[in-house]
Amino acid sequence: MSRTVYLNGEYIPETEAKVSIFDRGFVMSDGVYEVVSVLDGKLIDFDGHQARLNRSLDALEIGNPMPDADYLAMFRELVARNDITDGMIYLQVTRGNPGDRDFAYPPKDTPQTVVAFTQSKPGLADNPAAQSGWKVITVPDERWGRRDIKTVQLLYPSMAKMAAKAQGADDAWLVEEGKITEGTSNNAYIVKGNTIITRELSHDILHGITRAAVLRLAREAQMTVEERGFTPDEAKQADEAFVTSASAFVMPVVSIDGAKIGTGTPGNVAARLREIYLDEMRKTAL
Amino acid sequence: MSRTVYLNGEYIPETEAKVSIFDRGFVMSDGVYEVVSVLDGKLIDFDGHQARLNRSLDALEIGNPMPDADYLAMFRELVARNDITDGMIYLQVTRGNPGDRDFAYPPKDTPQTVVAFTQSKPGLADNPAAQSGWKVITVPDERWGRRDIKTVQLLYPSMAKMAAKAQGADDAWLVEEGKITEGTSNNAYIVKGNTIITRELSHDILHGITRAAVLRLAREAQMTVEERGFTPDEAKQADEAFVTSASAFVMPVVSIDGAKIGTGTPGNVAARLREIYLDEMRKTAL
Repeated sequence: MSRTVYLNGEYIPETEAKVSIFDRGFVMSDGVYEVVSVLDGKLIDFDGHQARLNRSLDALEIGNPMPDADYLAMFRELVARNDITDGMIYLQVTRGNPGDRDFAYPPKDTPQTVVAFTQSKPGLADNPAAQSGWKVITVPDERWGRRDIKTVQLLYPSMAKMAAKAQGADDAWLVEEGKITEGTSNNAYIVKGNTIITRELSHDILHGITRAAVLRLAREAQMTVEERGFTPDEAKQADEAFVTSASAFVMPVVSIDGAKIGTGTPGNVAARLREIYLDEMRKTAL
Repeated sequence: MSRTVYLNGEYIPETEAKVSIFDRGFVMSDGVYEVVSVLDGKLIDFDGHQARLNRSLDALEIGNPMPDADYLAMFRELVARNDITDGMIYLQVTRGNPGDRDFAYPPKDTPQTVVAFTQSKPGLADNPAAQSGWKVITVPDERWGRRDIKTVQLLYPSMAKMAAKAQGADDAWLVEEGKITEGTSNNAYIVKGNTIITRELSHDILHGITRAAVLRLAREAQMTVEERGFTPDEAKQADEAFVTSASAFVMPVVSIDGAKIGTGTPGNVAARLREIYLDEMRKTAL
């Protein structure tokens, strides 16, 4: 069934959704995005994602074409029109179409391009991968310096994902100056005893919305959280490992570069955090 | 007058030239590009640019949809249809439209997206900036690690260009670990005595087609070329500075971060190289 997608104020069939070849998103990678999960037809942590969208736009001095409430209404409309029970909504905002190509930004009054579409994933929260866990490899982190801004510059993460697949793994953890920054599209964690260790926030990593919620819930559950970098070797010696993202929620990691983490099966801390996170998010879904 | 542009085998009005919102170039920055100059209706160093396009596609494992001769014929057709005397042709090839968004590459048989358009710049080779010279500022180089692949991930160069404009300058030189890598869309050079100094080729900089031609011509003219990194301080003490690119050719730089280079006017070496380069390129234009 063809999806109905959103493009600049209109709901149209996906095959008709096109942007100009001069769009800054196409010729300059000049755009930002968000992915919001849908469970039982409701939006997961919409406010967190909307706040980050606004921050990304601000950081790049891209004007924000709509108030928060309009994004919410649009997302709900997309869920309804596409009859989404579980899945994701992808949203992208670019600096718009100046009608030609130039490194300099177009005039401030150039309308931004706003695109959104759904991805139906029935049973998203019951992903069997959460029972088996992910295998990850490590690769050098070759991305640009402002990973805190959620831009569409995803070529390197995409290349790293393919490198992982080529090795029979599920994802890649990126390593910079000897320490893991994060996964290709998720934040990375290890667990040692009762302590959850994940890299501190900076320009080096995405400020994960799921990360923020999981760390808050972990602290509320009396777990200890240490926000600091860790090496691949430390990860291999850990009791558990996992990643978080808007669509994978809390996903156990069972091996790194072929080395088993702990027993090589999903750990208890990851399982518990996944449960707590999903419970809380379902309660607050919009 | 509306341009005629090329999109996937068709010549169409620019306002009708659109790509899917699912195109990898739009959602993943998964595409490469080239800019070829046109002087007197002929293509400058087509072979060099075509060879680099092929290298960029290879490096990213993007299939090449056309033989070299078809690109040449298409460029000539665009020049003719748009009656271009002087200007540029912009070409972009992306990994195509898989019909949905995923970090993993689409199947190999997904058709690539090929876009090309002209930019008319009458008198391109007589740009008055070549007489006055450019002012540049320095900013940290925050780009990804594979700048030798000419991808559309141009957000940071775009931000740096805006930072330069905000300071009343013409461009920014990017600095990494204390040394200049290159300009936002050009290679950077200083001159000390009879020696031309420019950073050596590596993953850190674009392997400029104009750079290769200018260095070859400089050596043929008995100038000494040193391929090594240099610091902003060394640049400020130089006799001359300049940049090269496909559309700026050889462009003198007269100040860095407000400090005059040499006399603060375009230098003789840059002027001579510009003349030699333009002469040679006009002779070999296709």
